[in-house]
Amino acid sequence: MSASFDALGNIVGRYPAADAAAPVVMTGSHQDSVRNAGKYDGLFGIISAIACIKDLKARGKRLPYTLEVVGLGDEEGVRFGTALMSSRAIAGSFEPSWLDKTDERGVSLRSAIEEFGGDAEAWPALNRRGKLAAYVESHIEQGPVLLNEGLPVGVVTAITGAARLRVAVAGLAGHAGTVPMGSRRDALCAAAEMILFVERYCESRRALVGTVGKLSVLPGAINVIPQDVEFSVDVRSGENALWREAVEAFGREFQKIAERRGSSVIVSPVYSADAAPCDADLQDQLAKAIAEQGIAVRHLASGAGHDAMVFPPICPMAMLFVRCGNNGISHHPDETMTADDAEIATSVLLHFFEHFDAAAFASKQGTA
Amino acid sequence: MSASFDALGNIVGRYPAADAAAPVVMTGSHQDSVRNAGKYDGLFGIISAIACIKDLKARGKRLPYTLEVVGLGDEEGVRFGTALMSSRAIAGSFEPSWLDKTDERGVSLRSAIEEFGGDAEAWPALNRRGKLAAYVESHIEQGPVLLNEGLPVGVVTAITGAARLRVAVAGLAGHAGTVPMGSRRDALCAAAEMILFVERYCESRRALVGTVGKLSVLPGAINVIPQDVEFSVDVRSGENALWREAVEAFGREFQKIAERRGSSVIVSPVYSADAAPCDADLQDQLAKAIAEQGIAVRHLASGAGHDAMVFPPICPMAMLFVRCGNNGISHHPDETMTADDAEIATSVLLHFFEHFDAAAFASKQGTA
Repeated sequence: MSASFDALGNIVGRYPAADAAAPVVMTGSHQDSVRNAGKYDGLFGIISAIACIKDLKARGKRLPYTLEVVGLGDEEGVRFGTALMSSRAIAGSFEPSWLDKTDERGVSLRSAIEEFGGDAEAWPALNRRGKLAAYVESHIEQGPVLLNEGLPVGVVTAITGAARLRVAVAGLAGHAGTVPMGSRRDALCAAAEMILFVERYCESRRALVGTVGKLSVLPGAINVIPQDVEFSVDVRSGENALWREAVEAFGREFQKIAERRGSSVIVSPVYSADAAPCDADLQDQLAKAIAEQGIAVRHLASGAGHDAMVFPPICPMAMLFVRCGNNGISHHPDETMTADDAEIATSVLLHFFEHFDAAAFASKQGTA
Repeated sequence: MSASFDALGNIVGRYPAADAAAPVVMTGSHQDSVRNAGKYDGLFGIISAIACIKDLKARGKRLPYTLEVVGLGDEEGVRFGTALMSSRAIAGSFEPSWLDKTDERGVSLRSAIEEFGGDAEAWPALNRRGKLAAYVESHIEQGPVLLNEGLPVGVVTAITGAARLRVAVAGLAGHAGTVPMGSRRDALCAAAEMILFVERYCESRRALVGTVGKLSVLPGAINVIPQDVEFSVDVRSGENALWREAVEAFGREFQKIAERRGSSVIVSPVYSADAAPCDADLQDQLAKAIAEQGIAVRHLASGAGHDAMVFPPICPMAMLFVRCGNNGISHHPDETMTADDAEIATSVLLHFFEHFDAAAFASKQGTA
C-alpha cells in the first residue's frame, strides 16, 4: 500500500489492483474527533481497514479492485464549524466559502491547510464523482443497541433523517399563591404534556427517536406561574416518512394541548435532513460476512451522522457498526470497544473485501 | 384623629375612644410596594380606614375603643430584604440584626431610619404585645377568585401556609440520535411527569395550590438526552394539614416516577411556614357587615403574605379582600380596583367598626 496526503490534508492509502483500470472502492473514516473525546470514534474505521490490507499483503493477495483507505481530516467540524468537510470534498459537495471560515484564534481554514502543507485551492481535485464503485465504512456504534443485544457488530440500514423544532408555549403569569388551579394558564404544565407526548409517540413506533434536550422557563421564579416556555424537539428516523409524520403529529397535538389549556403554541422548524440510505446489496454482503463468523445479523439505523452519509449522490455506500461499551457512551473518554469486538469487526470487513466483486457490482448499479 | 410617625417611620393615626382605658383596635396596611407596582396593594387598606374615620368624625361618632390606623413603612422588603419589618416590630418579632442590612448603595437600614428622622434603636417601643384587642386589614385580593365569582369583597379565612421544595432529578445523558427510546433515562421526561402530578394533585383538592415556577436542564443541548433537571415546587394552603400532605405525596410519587424510569430524585425542603389563621369571631362580624350590604359572603384564603399574618401571636386578626380586576393581576401597573368596589369595601369596614364590641371581644378572647 502506498500512502500520501491529498491537497486538503487527508491521508490516502492505496492498495492497487493488478489492473490499473479496475474499479476503485473506498473505505476509511475520520481522524479528527471532538474535545475530550473517546479513542475509537473515527479512528477504528481507518485502522481496521489498514489491518485488512496488512493481512491481504501478508498473504500476497491482490483484490480485483483498488482499495483506498482514507483518513479524513475533518468530520466533526470542531475547529472551523465545517462538519463532513473532507468527505464532502471527495463527494463533490465541498463549499468553497468554508475556506474563509476562521477558528477561535482567527486563523482561516485556507491558511491552516496551507500551513499544514496542503493546497486549499486544489479542493476540486478531490472530487471522485463517477470514479468510485462503493464507499464502505466501519465505525463504533456510539449507542447501546448492539451492547443491549449482546452482538459485536451490526449492519447499518441508513443514517437517519432528522428534524429539529423550536416550540414556544405562551401561558399567563400569575402569583403562585393567589391564582386557583382552575384559573391558571401554566405554560410549563402545557410543555410537560407536550414533552410526554413526544416520548409516548416515539416509544410507540419502531425506528423513531424523539428528544426534548433544551427547555427554558420565563419568568422562572419560584413563586410565579410560568408564562413562557421554549423547548427544542429533535426527531430522527432512518425512514423519512416516519420523522415527517412525527413532526406533523407533534404540531397537531401541541395545538390541542395548548388550546385545551387556554394557552398558545408556536412550532417552528429549524432544521431538517433526509435519511441517507445504505445500499441494499452492500448491506447483504456485509450481512453474509457477519453470518460467516457465526454471528446473528442485526440491522440498525445510525442516529448519528457519519462521513458515509455524503456518498449516496456519487456511489453506493454501506456501514458496519461495532459494539460500544459503557452503555453506548461516545464523544467521551469512557467510550470503549473490546479487542475481541475489534478483531471480529476486522474479520467481517476482510471477508467483505475479499468476496466483493466490484466490477459486477458497479455494472449492476450503473456506477463507474 | 391625631397622626404621627413612630420611631421606625410608620405613620400612626389615632381616633381615640372617650375612655382612655378603652381597648385599642388596629387597622391599616403597608405604604410601600414593589418596583413597577400597582396603585392599590397596601395603600387601599390605609385609605379605606381613614375614610371610615372621616365618616365617623363627620357624624360626631366615637367608638367604644380607640381605633389606630397604621401606614406601615416596609412590608415588601424591596430595599433591605426585610419583609414585614414594620408589622413585626408592632407584633414583637422584629429582628435587631435587620438594622445592619444595607441597600444596593450600601446604606444601612439603621442610617436610612435615622436620616428619615426616626430612631432605629427605639424599635422595642413599637411592640404592642398585650395591648391590642384585634388587628383588621382590608387589602386588594391580588388574585382572580372574587373577580371570577362576580363578588366585590370576601372574608379571608387564613393567610396560607406554604412549603417550597427543590427537586433534583438525575437521569443519564446520551446522544439524541443513537439511544433507542426504550434504553433512555431522560431526566426531563421524568420531571414532566412530576410537574403534571403536582398539577393534578392540587386540582383534585380544594384550598390547595401548587406551582413549578423554575426549571433547569443539563446539559441542555438540542441533541443530548437530559441528564439532570432541577425544579422548584411551591405549595400553599390555608389548612396546614393540606400542604403537609401534599409535600408527602409529592415525595412519594416523585420517587415512584424516578424508580420506574431508572432515574433518581432528591427532594429537598427549602422553606415552610404554617398558615396564619384569621379569627373566627372577627370573620363572622366581617361576614355580617358584608351581608348587611346585600352581598353574598365568600370566604377565601389568601395565597399571598400580608402584614396581618404576623399578628396571631399577639392578638386576633382578620382581613377583608377587595376584588382585583384584570384577571387578578397585582404588583404590576395593570393592577386595578373599581371605585364602586372601593366604596362597598369601605362601607363594609365602617359597618364592622361601628358594630364591633371590642371590650366584650377582648374579654372573651382573653386578650388585653
